[in-house]
Amino acid sequence: MLRTHTCGELRIEDVNKPVTLTGWVQRTRDKGSLLWIDLRDRYGITQLFLEEGKTDASVLQTARTTGREYVLKVQGTVVERLSKNDKMPTGDIEVKVSSIEILNPSKVPPFTIEDNTDGGDDLRMKYRYLDLRRNPVRESLQLRHKMAQQTRIYLDSLNFIEVETPVLIKSTPEGARDFVVPSRMNPGEFYALPQSPQTFKQLLMVSGFDRYYQIVKCFRDEDLRADRQPEFTQIDCEMAFITQEDILNTFEGLVRHLFKTVKGIDLPSVPHMSYTDAMKYYGSDKPDTRFEMKFAELNDVAQGKGFQVFDSAELVVGICAQGCAEYTRKQLDELTEFVKRPQVGAKGLVYVQYKADGTFKSSVDKFYSADDLKQWAERFNAKPGDLLLVLSGEKAKTQKALNELRLKMGDQLGLRDKNKFAALWVIDFPLLEWNEETQRYHAMHHPFTSPKREDIQLLDTNPGAVRANAYDMVINGTEVGGGSIRIHDRATQQLMFTHLGFSDEEAKKQFGFLMDAFEFGAPPHGGIAFGFDRLCSLFGGADSIRDFIAFPKNNAGRDMMIDTPSAISQEQLNELSIAVQEVKK
Amino acid sequence: MLRTHTCGELRIEDVNKPVTLTGWVQRTRDKGSLLWIDLRDRYGITQLFLEEGKTDASVLQTARTTGREYVLKVQGTVVERLSKNDKMPTGDIEVKVSSIEILNPSKVPPFTIEDNTDGGDDLRMKYRYLDLRRNPVRESLQLRHKMAQQTRIYLDSLNFIEVETPVLIKSTPEGARDFVVPSRMNPGEFYALPQSPQTFKQLLMVSGFDRYYQIVKCFRDEDLRADRQPEFTQIDCEMAFITQEDILNTFEGLVRHLFKTVKGIDLPSVPHMSYTDAMKYYGSDKPDTRFEMKFAELNDVAQGKGFQVFDSAELVVGICAQGCAEYTRKQLDELTEFVKRPQVGAKGLVYVQYKADGTFKSSVDKFYSADDLKQWAERFNAKPGDLLLVLSGEKAKTQKALNELRLKMGDQLGLRDKNKFAALWVIDFPLLEWNEETQRYHAMHHPFTSPKREDIQLLDTNPGAVRANAYDMVINGTEVGGGSIRIHDRATQQLMFTHLGFSDEEAKKQFGFLMDAFEFGAPPHGGIAFGFDRLCSLFGGADSIRDFIAFPKNNAGRDMMIDTPSAISQEQLNELSIAVQEVKK
Repeated sequence: MLRTHTCGELRIEDVNKPVTLTGWVQRTRDKGSLLWIDLRDRYGITQLFLEEGKTDASVLQTARTTGREYVLKVQGTVVERLSKNDKMPTGDIEVKVSSIEILNPSKVPPFTIEDNTDGGDDLRMKYRYLDLRRNPVRESLQLRHKMAQQTRIYLDSLNFIEVETPVLIKSTPEGARDFVVPSRMNPGEFYALPQSPQTFKQLLMVSGFDRYYQIVKCFRDEDLRADRQPEFTQIDCEMAFITQEDILNTFEGLVRHLFKTVKGIDLPSVPHMSYTDAMKYYGSDKPDTRFEMKFAELNDVAQGKGFQVFDSAELVVGICAQGCAEYTRKQLDELTEFVKRPQVGAKGLVYVQYKADGTFKSSVDKFYSADDLKQWAERFNAKPGDLLLVLSGEKAKTQKALNELRLKMGDQLGLRDKNKFAALWVIDFPLLEWNEETQRYHAMHHPFTSPKREDIQLLDTNPGAVRANAYDMVINGTEVGGGSIRIHDRATQQLMFTHLGFSDEEAKKQFGFLMDAFEFGAPPHGGIAFGFDRLCSLFGGADSIRDFIAFPKNNAGRDMMIDTPSAISQEQLNELSIAVQEVKK
Repeated sequence: MLRTHTCGELRIEDVNKPVTLTGWVQRTRDKGSLLWIDLRDRYGITQLFLEEGKTDASVLQTARTTGREYVLKVQGTVVERLSKNDKMPTGDIEVKVSSIEILNPSKVPPFTIEDNTDGGDDLRMKYRYLDLRRNPVRESLQLRHKMAQQTRIYLDSLNFIEVETPVLIKSTPEGARDFVVPSRMNPGEFYALPQSPQTFKQLLMVSGFDRYYQIVKCFRDEDLRADRQPEFTQIDCEMAFITQEDILNTFEGLVRHLFKTVKGIDLPSVPHMSYTDAMKYYGSDKPDTRFEMKFAELNDVAQGKGFQVFDSAELVVGICAQGCAEYTRKQLDELTEFVKRPQVGAKGLVYVQYKADGTFKSSVDKFYSADDLKQWAERFNAKPGDLLLVLSGEKAKTQKALNELRLKMGDQLGLRDKNKFAALWVIDFPLLEWNEETQRYHAMHHPFTSPKREDIQLLDTNPGAVRANAYDMVINGTEVGGGSIRIHDRATQQLMFTHLGFSDEEAKKQFGFLMDAFEFGAPPHGGIAFGFDRLCSLFGGADSIRDFIAFPKNNAGRDMMIDTPSAISQEQLNELSIAVQEVKK
């Protein structure tokens, strides 16, 4: 090693030791007769010290030629600092320099290498290798490493086997768009990159692997919304000879293990909530349960009193914002404006102020007596000082809008603390969901999810009511994982494909291998996949996944640093038997 | 769990316990009044027992309808076996069955699920999910899992950070062919799949990550030789602020850790051998050092005696096969035939039998006296009873041919035991190698490998003589890993690109980001990558890597099970702005 110690490890006990350090110049303070350099590496910062008259003149001269981000190799002796810095682990000491070698100079970086940099997003992405030098970004990737380590430790301890599944697989247009890879050796044919190793992990169960996992890259060629990446990482898992409860317990265990080992948090046991209840009480299949503020339905107590808006509504539903009875007119107007935004979609907002003195003031006093409003308040277990916020209209839309309002109120009341964590299993998802665009049902999860046995009879008569053995893990309102008990017999799988609009031929062509496999002794099995990038960002308390990925792509799917995608040569195209053609408008 | 125990865990201590087992029917023996079923899962086999008159008749009847590979759930009681089987961990007990549920029936599998199957390669690949049920294949993948686990444990303990690098990167035609991925959002542009994360791991060093590793899929679109796969896995590593010795020590440590923890073998410390010596003494840059049989050069003692073949040869070189002096005429003829094969390429073989009585008999007695031959024998430290085998001709070709002969003799003499392991560092590789086809020098390793400082001056005058700071780890004659100390300054990198025939423009377009990065404080760094599939097969004592990959492709790059690559829809092609075109002949 070019160094004897890292820049993070010297302490008061090391005083008088001769040491060699290597690292980057974080900053230099030149007081004329005294010169300090902060030398930085991954492990920390150590202060170097040079003194006119005592340090060799040529060494001082070399030190003075160095600038920010120069790479140095420094020899010296550890000495106790006169003015200690208790904010740094190395703050008790400094290194009295006897020699300096410049291992590599540096141009002035295009932005500062500080926790709060002056660099904009584009510049940071173009010079990602410099951005990665910043502590918050490096720490995010170190957190990710620790998460992966602990995931493996937990699953290994339960006899899971990590198996690598192929990256060059077959294109199956069901679901999102595939990235494809032309095959040179098989002209006109293509591989696809996996959107998930779904069929392979099921085949591993057919093979008797019993417990499989993989931390694995997956790919989706989607129009990138903010914070989506064309390549992303999953913790992908599957188990055989299990019930749904076994899966929920095993992976609740994983999440609790991660909280314990990575964050030192004892997560309480994770409650289960049906999809129906999640929609009813939170208007969302991924409710943020860090705070209560459950929906209460008011149809029976709010309808039939002459208020036309409510009377004509499919659903009248509200939330109770504790301690907000004294919201000003302006604040209430802001909330009304919020719910009327197109993204939220409500027509208006009814409020009821439950004053500290026990009286009520509402935007619908004309229609409702104090007794009426008291009845409403009881629905919420509201207390004097609380504010009721009520929406109405078509059921699904109103639930969705009230979910947005609930989250906004949660933010406003400081109930969504990033350092507090609430996990939840949402279970009993619908098997199918209606797609307005294609005018047919699609698999809500994927075509391999098993329907609840007692609901199969509804497949023909009321497909939307069929429930699946499917579940999501939700933390702080974010879906971090989801899975299902799978179909493991050919007949049911074929039935599913039929209901999803596959012809027998299509089903056989795309998934014949899986249905064949089911005829050779497939065990009952199920699994789950966690979005690893998202899970890491959640643990890191960040909104964006970008800094938890070493080299992310921008929203146009472009890597700004290496400047790709890019043109390839005509020779390459010829070898692959493909041509670039004009975009068809 | 559907079971209380696995099929591998019941022991004599469990007698009288009520248990529920799940698994596959391995075989059934029906003796009329007595019926045994071997139930198999990943963990082992447990014998089930049913008895006419004692077992419920309907249970017996169900049992009799089951066939090979049926999936059963069985309840019963553990009983001591009358005739124990000490070859099975569960051989002291059996389970007296009280109920059987058929979880899934099975068609008769197309080949037997036994250690030695009757299935051919193609059939096994098409039904890979059944092939994976066979113990040797499952054990190979379990070994692979353990190797990955232990690799991570070792590297984690040394502060290496696992960082995921991108899979969708930029095509850089230097080296092997890239697989490419058309970008829908950027029509006419392509991503490439990485042949290795080389530039990214170097950028992580520039970023100060200090110690990086990744167990990562890489891709090469090559014409597949036997036992090559288009996607393969590397243990990819990089360190900063190190010398070559640090890398060699660290990764010798990894390999020794793997041998110790996975195989229980204490590998001795790994010797270093220069590339020059490897060629001189073994005729190969990946010598099998499980056995000695070093080359001895005979030019000075064999030339000038009138034997025209030797006199005109650039090199006369041989090996000594211990104890083979009594090889028959037929055996010697076979060896001659062997070396004359086109793949080996020698013109002929000279042998010298050093008889037990101290006399010599050779194929060139006409030209050489006993004293001459004694001189040869001394070169080999040969003893009476040994056989000398000598080739001659152009140096490189002769070394190559003698290497083949040496390996054949090693096989023949049982010196290449798959359970014995000899590791070796081959160091000081040439920086460049001449390519006859392109008539120019190519990087032997890759363009980022640093030349030895003292040899840089030879770049213009004698490029082939420039040595690199490059090294390979060789085990049992297989290159399992290789790496180098990298260039870390722009000037040297640019010099390398120039010598490799890149125009400044090309170099900048393809690797500008890396050269830019070198100007912002790049530390000295180097690394290594191990071929993980190969390393696993070596540990598993197998010749082929195929069974160490869950879902391998065949030599045409085709996955026979899912039948891919395959055609994609015109709609997909349109979205990607590409067309399939006729192959240009």
